[in-house]
Amino acid sequence: MTAGRTGPKAVNTTFFSEMLQSIADRGRALIQRREPARERSAGLVELCEALLSGRGEASGVALASDILARYEDLTIGPRTAFFETLATTFGPDRKRVDAAIAAWQKAPSDQAANELHHASEPRRLELFRRLNLAPGGTKALVRMREQLMDAMDLRDDLAVIDSDFVHLFSSWFNRGFLVLRRIDWSSPAIVLEKIIRYEAVHQIRDWEDLRRRIDPPDRRCYAFFHPALVDEPLIFVEVALTRETPAAIAPILAGKRDEVDPERATTAVFYSITNCQRGLAGVSFGHFLIKQVVEELSREFGRVSTFVTLSPAPNFAVWLKRERGNAASLVLDEDDRTVLGALDDPQCWRVPEIAERVRDPLLRAAAWYYVRGRNRRGLPLDSVARFHLGNGARLERLNWPGDTSERALAQSYGLMVNYLYDLGYIEKNHEAYAQQHAVVAASAVTRLVHAPVREVVPVSG
Amino acid sequence: MTAGRTGPKAVNTTFFSEMLQSIADRGRALIQRREPARERSAGLVELCEALLSGRGEASGVALASDILARYEDLTIGPRTAFFETLATTFGPDRKRVDAAIAAWQKAPSDQAANELHHASEPRRLELFRRLNLAPGGTKALVRMREQLMDAMDLRDDLAVIDSDFVHLFSSWFNRGFLVLRRIDWSSPAIVLEKIIRYEAVHQIRDWEDLRRRIDPPDRRCYAFFHPALVDEPLIFVEVALTRETPAAIAPILAGKRDEVDPERATTAVFYSITNCQRGLAGVSFGHFLIKQVVEELSREFGRVSTFVTLSPAPNFAVWLKRERGNAASLVLDEDDRTVLGALDDPQCWRVPEIAERVRDPLLRAAAWYYVRGRNRRGLPLDSVARFHLGNGARLERLNWPGDTSERALAQSYGLMVNYLYDLGYIEKNHEAYAQQHAVVAASAVTRLVHAPVREVVPVSG
Amino acid sequence: MTAGRTGPKAVNTTFFSEMLQSIADRGRALIQRREPARERSAGLVELCEALLSGRGEASGVALASDILARYEDLTIGPRTAFFETLATTFGPDRKRVDAAIAAWQKAPSDQAANELHHASEPRRLELFRRLNLAPGGTKALVRMREQLMDAMDLRDDLAVIDSDFVHLFSSWFNRGFLVLRRIDWSSPAIVLEKIIRYEAVHQIRDWEDLRRRIDPPDRRCYAFFHPALVDEPLIFVEVALTRETPAAIAPILAGKRDEVDPERATTAVFYSITNCQRGLAGVSFGHFLIKQVVEELSREFGRVSTFVTLSPAPNFAVWLKRERGNAASLVLDEDDRTVLGALDDPQCWRVPEIAERVRDPLLRAAAWYYVRGRNRRGLPLDSVARFHLGNGARLERLNWPGDTSERALAQSYGLMVNYLYDLGYIEKNHEAYAQQHAVVAASAVTRLVHAPVREVVPVSG
Amino acid sequence: MTAGRTGPKAVNTTFFSEMLQSIADRGRALIQRREPARERSAGLVELCEALLSGRGEASGVALASDILARYEDLTIGPRTAFFETLATTFGPDRKRVDAAIAAWQKAPSDQAANELHHASEPRRLELFRRLNLAPGGTKALVRMREQLMDAMDLRDDLAVIDSDFVHLFSSWFNRGFLVLRRIDWSSPAIVLEKIIRYEAVHQIRDWEDLRRRIDPPDRRCYAFFHPALVDEPLIFVEVALTRETPAAIAPILAGKRDEVDPERATTAVFYSITNCQRGLAGVSFGHFLIKQVVEELSREFGRVSTFVTLSPAPNFAVWLKRERGNAASLVLDEDDRTVLGALDDPQCWRVPEIAERVRDPLLRAAAWYYVRGRNRRGLPLDSVARFHLGNGARLERLNWPGDTSERALAQSYGLMVNYLYDLGYIEKNHEAYAQQHAVVAASAVTRLVHAPVREVVPVSG
Repeated sequence: MTAGRTGPKAVNTTFFSEMLQSIADRGRALIQRREPARERSAGLVELCEALLSGRGEASGVALASDILARYEDLTIGPRTAFFETLATTFGPDRKRVDAAIAAWQKAPSDQAANELHHASEPRRLELFRRLNLAPGGTKALVRMREQLMDAMDLRDDLAVIDSDFVHLFSSWFNRGFLVLRRIDWSSPAIVLEKIIRYEAVHQIRDWEDLRRRIDPPDRRCYAFFHPALVDEPLIFVEVALTRETPAAIAPILAGKRDEVDPERATTAVFYSITNCQRGLAGVSFGHFLIKQVVEELSREFGRVSTFVTLSPAPNFAVWLKRERGNAASLVLDEDDRTVLGALDDPQCWRVPEIAERVRDPLLRAAAWYYVRGRNRRGLPLDSVARFHLGNGARLERLNWPGDTSERALAQSYGLMVNYLYDLGYIEKNHEAYAQQHAVVAASAVTRLVHAPVREVVPVSG
Repeated sequence: MTAGRTGPKAVNTTFFSEMLQSIADRGRALIQRREPARERSAGLVELCEALLSGRGEASGVALASDILARYEDLTIGPRTAFFETLATTFGPDRKRVDAAIAAWQKAPSDQAANELHHASEPRRLELFRRLNLAPGGTKALVRMREQLMDAMDLRDDLAVIDSDFVHLFSSWFNRGFLVLRRIDWSSPAIVLEKIIRYEAVHQIRDWEDLRRRIDPPDRRCYAFFHPALVDEPLIFVEVALTRETPAAIAPILAGKRDEVDPERATTAVFYSITNCQRGLAGVSFGHFLIKQVVEELSREFGRVSTFVTLSPAPNFAVWLKRERGNAASLVLDEDDRTVLGALDDPQCWRVPEIAERVRDPLLRAAAWYYVRGRNRRGLPLDSVARFHLGNGARLERLNWPGDTSERALAQSYGLMVNYLYDLGYIEKNHEAYAQQHAVVAASAVTRLVHAPVREVVPVSG
Repeated sequence: MTAGRTGPKAVNTTFFSEMLQSIADRGRALIQRREPARERSAGLVELCEALLSGRGEASGVALASDILARYEDLTIGPRTAFFETLATTFGPDRKRVDAAIAAWQKAPSDQAANELHHASEPRRLELFRRLNLAPGGTKALVRMREQLMDAMDLRDDLAVIDSDFVHLFSSWFNRGFLVLRRIDWSSPAIVLEKIIRYEAVHQIRDWEDLRRRIDPPDRRCYAFFHPALVDEPLIFVEVALTRETPAAIAPILAGKRDEVDPERATTAVFYSITNCQRGLAGVSFGHFLIKQVVEELSREFGRVSTFVTLSPAPNFAVWLKRERGNAASLVLDEDDRTVLGALDDPQCWRVPEIAERVRDPLLRAAAWYYVRGRNRRGLPLDSVARFHLGNGARLERLNWPGDTSERALAQSYGLMVNYLYDLGYIEKNHEAYAQQHAVVAASAVTRLVHAPVREVVPVSG
Repeated sequence: MTAGRTGPKAVNTTFFSEMLQSIADRGRALIQRREPARERSAGLVELCEALLSGRGEASGVALASDILARYEDLTIGPRTAFFETLATTFGPDRKRVDAAIAAWQKAPSDQAANELHHASEPRRLELFRRLNLAPGGTKALVRMREQLMDAMDLRDDLAVIDSDFVHLFSSWFNRGFLVLRRIDWSSPAIVLEKIIRYEAVHQIRDWEDLRRRIDPPDRRCYAFFHPALVDEPLIFVEVALTRETPAAIAPILAGKRDEVDPERATTAVFYSITNCQRGLAGVSFGHFLIKQVVEELSREFGRVSTFVTLSPAPNFAVWLKRERGNAASLVLDEDDRTVLGALDDPQCWRVPEIAERVRDPLLRAAAWYYVRGRNRRGLPLDSVARFHLGNGARLERLNWPGDTSERALAQSYGLMVNYLYDLGYIEKNHEAYAQQHAVVAASAVTRLVHAPVREVVPVSG
């Protein structure tokens, strides 16, 4: 047994941590550069060809920087034209594809497949890789995809580029290259302002509101970063440490509240998860983030053993409204539909008697929505449910009214959901979901799913 | 004009630099783990399949760690068997390839090419990407390729895996993700010991020898690092600041010497460039490193304006020996061959009169070797020359005897070469080399290239 | 000439920089600790005695922490009582003083003086040093002095303690231990919020306002920190890079303004200097800060060669009001007094004709105030003038109206002053000021100082 | 209960940690500066006077740097002359002392004592404080004291300066300003080489030897640093994690040995403690270091509950030799003296039978030496014993032969001692030692202390 190979070992990692500094500096360099626009867009395509050619090897960094700077100066029209060119001119070399196919069909072999693979690779993939030579290249490419996505709203022929981006970013933003960082009141303002800006679930009003989310001892916020995107969080999660599973969001976000001694907390509540980079859509980080945060919290707080979300139900109101209007509903009988008519006034929850009457049929309907409801692909109707169930969480509890913000009332009549991450069952739950689309739910939820009002016909969504 | 977009700006980048810490910690974690081997290798392939399947999504990190740990425990036999399986079982899905070909042939389109590309991607590529989920995954994969290269010495059928590794690593180790770091006496011992170990050109004997290379004010050492390989330099270069272009290595490495005030230095001499990671062979960093170091030095030392190498000539002796024995040599006439007979004693340089006589024909031969000599692919005969000329450097001067170490005498009879990096000409030189295989050389060198001894027949190498 | 001793040398200092981390952690530890108060104050004095006795050596850290925690829980009454005890019981050992005097008088010697010095040292000084063993001790002691200063407003007998604090802090906060840090948008929020809170000259309204001061490329902010006070700036200065010496503050603080390319700036304007720690009053940092910032900026921006302040005149209005009401004023004649009557409406500057009429007599009076006016100790009347002139700056220009904020109008009728830091003259100016209380002023200012209205009688203030 | 005041909280401390960087840079700056010496020493005293006068305020940093540079260039003669001047000219202002005495004798008061204190402060103390303004000032002052100590070997009149240094450094190097850092294989070479150089107890032969001490998972090394001395450890301790209390040093230092899984270790052995800075003699760090390391290890390794030293007995051989030659010894009877005659050959431990015979009387004598032996001041005879017993440790076990290195045989015939740090008893032990000079020892040791050979006469040492 040799030294350095046995047992855990904490090391001084400062040297290595300093490395990022230069990436950070480079990352910002590009953005700051700003010369008169002139005819920057001119010859953009020619420059791309030059970068792909041998010339790129000698002065690739400068060339890549130049291309990105010119690209950045494009207005919408020329930009779309550039995307078109990427789609048409920078696709695969068709002659090479045909030759590779001929070789394969003559004698299928790994080598032949290899050539097929390389021949069919669009040239723009290599172009993107070379553009990444530029300082700030990664950030610029992520932005380029955002703009591509905008352009795709209007055009169908650009999807091939998008597919290449997803492929490339999935490799570059491999979880092995991501870094988990705690966000707190000692974090740089340049990062914090992005948390304020990006938070998508429960809006952060201002810096004081932010401080309430990250500074108290019973609050945590974690984000994934990528070394080449420095001050840009990729995804972050906000966590409250509590002594029980919460049923509503308001007490968690309250300005005045009793703090919980984190040493006595038993429960970690993930009450907001936000993807920050639209340009990285399709590259999934969420389940890695949740799992690593669960690990971190377990290590730091010995008593915290329940990991649960407090989640929105973004698609519930649309569905329920339809069922309420559907005389042939499998879910709601006539009485239910009558009682739930109260929801036509979204503020009905304020009147205790009404709320009392509405709650039961609403929760039964919600249970059906989550447990039985399926979309065309056979998956649960709710996008948030698909995310957490796909991660191996269990549908734990339905809460009404859980969120009485205007937005939540509009989306879900105020329904909120707890999903439980029980480490011992995550893999099993995930398997059940992945293979049979099974929704694993607590009995408190399944109990609410009555026999259907009528004979069940094939599940629809 | 908005804030933050104008002009250069130095920022506090500590927050971001800390990110790497966790990567570093993770990077070391894997290596230290060491449980009894048991039947770790058992089921390795099954685990790989599991990682590629849906199960990977739920517990991918653990699964990837487990696979890498088991792999690490394999002895040579089972390891080669594992590579075989990678080559055969984890290639592309042939049925999908055939279907994609059919679709393409029916209607060639970008989408069809895209499917062709994905279908012909070997499954092991995605396997490697998922193995990278494990802490220390990148390091483990680089090592895996090293072992693959060893196995390839004996087997021909593994080259397809190697090709995939090169493809993957070229994307991951894109220059945009590399970080330049100065190596000095304040660097961590764990990095410095690697500089000692890896130095391939002029051996570093011990820590005192190392200190002489990196600590004096007229010495510099720079390396590229990758965030996920933390304490492993990828490539490094050793630099001496001088007041003239040196003709021999001994004065640079001397234990006792007069230091040069770096503020008064005019010349930066790159006297050793070492690739550290055998597992990254084929992914080129060298020219990026040299160019960035040139930039760094220019910024730091205003007076340094000459950037030049002092390089070995690793393939010269073999070639010269052959020419010396070749009565029909185009390069050496009979007189030359007689005089150069003195080289049969490698220590002949010690006798001034002999050295005096040998120098002229030797340098003429060397000039021919560099300027006219070509290998089968039409490229210069010397591997080091190909590297620097390909980078756009100019062949500046030939020096003899430049290195009288035993190894250098054996490789090159002690010949050393200066290549000049003249920023104003790098691109032009590179183009000339890349397109016409032209060797750009100083007139002091070309002047030495006499008309051939006999009629020139097609260039050979 | 040996390695490491020649020429400048940049080193990797990460290892050393990490050191502070533990100080920082310790620094925060104390503050967070918060157990029920109970009878914490009980026995405080006994514990102090124990800490001074031998017991302190064995468990000093714990004891010091305990004392500081109990002290922190004291309400005003008991706290004042504690200060009383510090003043009376923890003074010097009088017997020892008398003995030392006797020895000295018998045979004056350095040893005898040494004993005299130690004997007359109040015991509380050693107590303070030992309290500093506690995590966060330095911060707690600085706070203790703040509370002492409050108590001193009501009591005369506590000044001896204050004098000891000044003595101790002058040694601990020696400039050699201070660290200059740039404050920018990448700084931690926990530091930035203190900049917002402490700014005393030109109030920072909110985070957006702060960002306008520190983030644009033509703005800089620097602060001194002490390793043991971690996230507490001691003093900070706000700087604007401009192309000319500004005459008014509003354009500098404006929300919308044209940024200056810092590479083209010629002038650095120090427009706000704020001492942050009331508990460090009497320990001066200001001139060190200005001088080091001048150095930093010179190094970073080659073209910046004018270093000038834009300063308030905090005591001017009081003085001028008195002169205006003084029929026997040496400064104002009757006409002046009549015209300056307009100042009874502080907003009179808004009416162009009035402003036009007021400006001349006001500036003449101001010139007199600065150049001739003296307080009882023979020093200039204005506290800000004393600071900058004492630093060796020159009174460069008087501007009216320079600051039309309510506060500035009340303090100085809106007058602002430029002091010039001309590196070549700083020492000479300082000497003139220090030895002869001479006010070095630009001729544009001295020219305004007319012969006195009447015969000069002895200078008064 | 407000946010930020409850419960422990880990914060991102990067910003703060970066502060040290500038200190570090400044710390190195001075040393590297090296201009031709010329008449640097000329006017040194005049410059010191200037620094103490007002001029110091304007250009103090430059002046201080200049003085330290000139001082550094002094050869021994002029340096001693400079010290003389410091002793004579820079003492207290005697007139002011006499006046202060007069005031005190007229009316003794705290204010009068205060003036007495300040008046009797030697002027050189303020000089030293102002010299600390220079970059690298602290380091230079520590070195100055080293040279003062050398000079004191020859002169008696310089002790007053030394006393001032101790006073000043005790304040500056207050434990509250020290930082504990782990030293491992990731530490900078510039620090590690100092560990090699300074290790005083068990010599470190080379870098491989060093690595064996700090890199294996069952080894730890910790040092105290001061922010202003950056890459200079003040004191360090080497620790071995074991499963039992070791009786000899060789197995701990062995090149080949079985490592202990640190998770299974029960015992932390402090086997070497080294003070690094001769210039800080008299400022004690040792007990703080041991106590903080005990805390660190307790936190990191749950099972480690025994903290024990393996210490030398540096003064034992001298004492035993004397007793052996003393026919009237109270400790050794004639038989003992005969048997112990074998120790005349220091290698006698190699012969098993002799070792067997020697061990018992030797250990009995050693027990007496430690438990009963006292020096003139009534303290234990052994300096290492005084250190550990003063820290509150218990004399746990005597081991022979524990260290068979040449040096150890000469100092102690190879005796080694375990002192136990039992956290529950440290304060009690310390009190007993501090107040009654009691040696707290394990019964295994006290049992060895036989009744004295003869009637006990007053204890001597």
